[in-house]
Amino acid sequence: MDKQQLIDSHERIKPFIHNTPVLTSRLINEMAGADLYFKCENFQRMGAFKMRGAANAIIQLTDGQKRSGVVTHSSGNFAQALSLSAKSLGVKAYIVMPNSAPEVKKQAVKGYGGILIECEPTLEARERTSEKIVQEHGAVFIHPSNDDQVILGQGTACKELLEVHADLAYVFSPVGGGGLIAGTALSAHYFGNDCKTIGGEPFEVDDAHRSLKSGKIETNTNSNTIADGLKTQLGDRNFPIIQKYVEEIVRVTEEEIITAMRLIWERLKIVCEPSSAVALAAVLKQKDNLRGKKIGVVISGGNVDLSGLPF
Amino acid sequence: MDKQQLIDSHERIKPFIHNTPVLTSRLINEMAGADLYFKCENFQRMGAFKMRGAANAIIQLTDGQKRSGVVTHSSGNFAQALSLSAKSLGVKAYIVMPNSAPEVKKQAVKGYGGILIECEPTLEARERTSEKIVQEHGAVFIHPSNDDQVILGQGTACKELLEVHADLAYVFSPVGGGGLIAGTALSAHYFGNDCKTIGGEPFEVDDAHRSLKSGKIETNTNSNTIADGLKTQLGDRNFPIIQKYVEEIVRVTEEEIITAMRLIWERLKIVCEPSSAVALAAVLKQKDNLRGKKIGVVISGGNVDLSGLPF
Repeated sequence: MDKQQLIDSHERIKPFIHNTPVLTSRLINEMAGADLYFKCENFQRMGAFKMRGAANAIIQLTDGQKRSGVVTHSSGNFAQALSLSAKSLGVKAYIVMPNSAPEVKKQAVKGYGGILIECEPTLEARERTSEKIVQEHGAVFIHPSNDDQVILGQGTACKELLEVHADLAYVFSPVGGGGLIAGTALSAHYFGNDCKTIGGEPFEVDDAHRSLKSGKIETNTNSNTIADGLKTQLGDRNFPIIQKYVEEIVRVTEEEIITAMRLIWERLKIVCEPSSAVALAAVLKQKDNLRGKKIGVVISGGNVDLSGLPF
Repeated sequence: MDKQQLIDSHERIKPFIHNTPVLTSRLINEMAGADLYFKCENFQRMGAFKMRGAANAIIQLTDGQKRSGVVTHSSGNFAQALSLSAKSLGVKAYIVMPNSAPEVKKQAVKGYGGILIECEPTLEARERTSEKIVQEHGAVFIHPSNDDQVILGQGTACKELLEVHADLAYVFSPVGGGGLIAGTALSAHYFGNDCKTIGGEPFEVDDAHRSLKSGKIETNTNSNTIADGLKTQLGDRNFPIIQKYVEEIVRVTEEEIITAMRLIWERLKIVCEPSSAVALAAVLKQKDNLRGKKIGVVISGGNVDLSGLPF
């Protein structure tokens, strides 16, 4: 994927997304010993960066494909993002979700106009159900993170950040399914001035860290992390980009994630997901190497259950 | 107080404050049946609008007064605001606080460079201790809400809001000691286009509502509200302004405050104090009278104890 594709993707999705604000905190800067610029995708439409990739993927479809609709399987932000993007573009979105998913997530998808299809809570059932919708309706399957147009769309957040802070030395992003970090790394490479991309990942689900070491896509044997958006694994479209353009993936403990999350809430006065705090936790863990640098941090989203906060 | 004084106050404090962002939410607008513009003073320096009034009051002092320092009694945001404003202007700030105040509030004042003076937790002890500092150090006493320069400073938040949304029909503000609502009402009067000011106040501490009815400053017999910033009463400087320029003070229940607070956190993705949510709660309570209108809502601050959330 090249620079022009990122530029084109950004132009295409602009009418459907917000150019989100960049926030700073003197106290967090003092703690980090560096200048941090937080790209606040919690203020994105539907509350997360996923809106960018979803919109980019749908806009690219042919008119015939748009008439048949799109389908994905997700119980997280991508389900809502695809629903809302599709609605904005007059396209049907079929969302396959395990019947065990929280009622609030099911309602959110319906609220954004998605067509909810429930299935048994196994990967096999999710894939079979999605495939059935492709067969029956001619809907186009769009993967939440392992799709070129999704990756390009997610990369536009970092592009916007570099448009206002051109001289970042590093940009930190959380790593889940790999779409955000791959897109971020592409934008840092093409639009940055020697800007390096570093990922943050929980120790508990450190598949991406291990994948970079082993050179092949690794999986997780447990998923015991508060950062529920980061339990997924990399895919064959985003892994080569991550191998080529991501400097390092820094692992953090659950305690470090919660501390960073609290800092963001208390000092930036914003509501973010635990997954978002993983990027700041990685910055703080690496601070001895970052002294005096200008650093971008992608706050990935703000859809969090206020009844289940860790503090 | 006239229009020119508001303009002058704003120019004076600009180097020391942020022009805070204005946020909107489609879902909250749908719920209210109106277009709401949230002026986000939770993003103000030290996390609340109080920075505006404190800075305005200190800047106006003579050089001699500045050398002697300032004093106030407060255990809330004004203590921190006066400390930080004074520090920014090279002035000493003596902060009288009851020894029963939470340690975190004491530390915050010290963190902003204030000189903490503890006293017994009675109004009489606070006033006596402040008076002693005035006598001993020649420090100038600055009241948190019943001071002309403080009122003018607080009014600059509404002035900024009207600079970007000139045609608001109403602006809603919480009512505590009366400084914010008085300043807001002055700005709405001088800079709005027939813009009316409405206050929001908890039923539990409805002294301002009763004061407007009786025509004299009333007090509260209990203080059993989650909106801890609103327990104070009006003063002789701000009450006449409120009588003249505030349309109405709408009372809300504790449950309505918590519901509104949760809406702000979940939908605007920002951290705000319970006191801030009182203004939105008042809008929602009055929504039948506001249909289709453009309405400003002052989010007063974001300094909240994350360990003690009501949800």
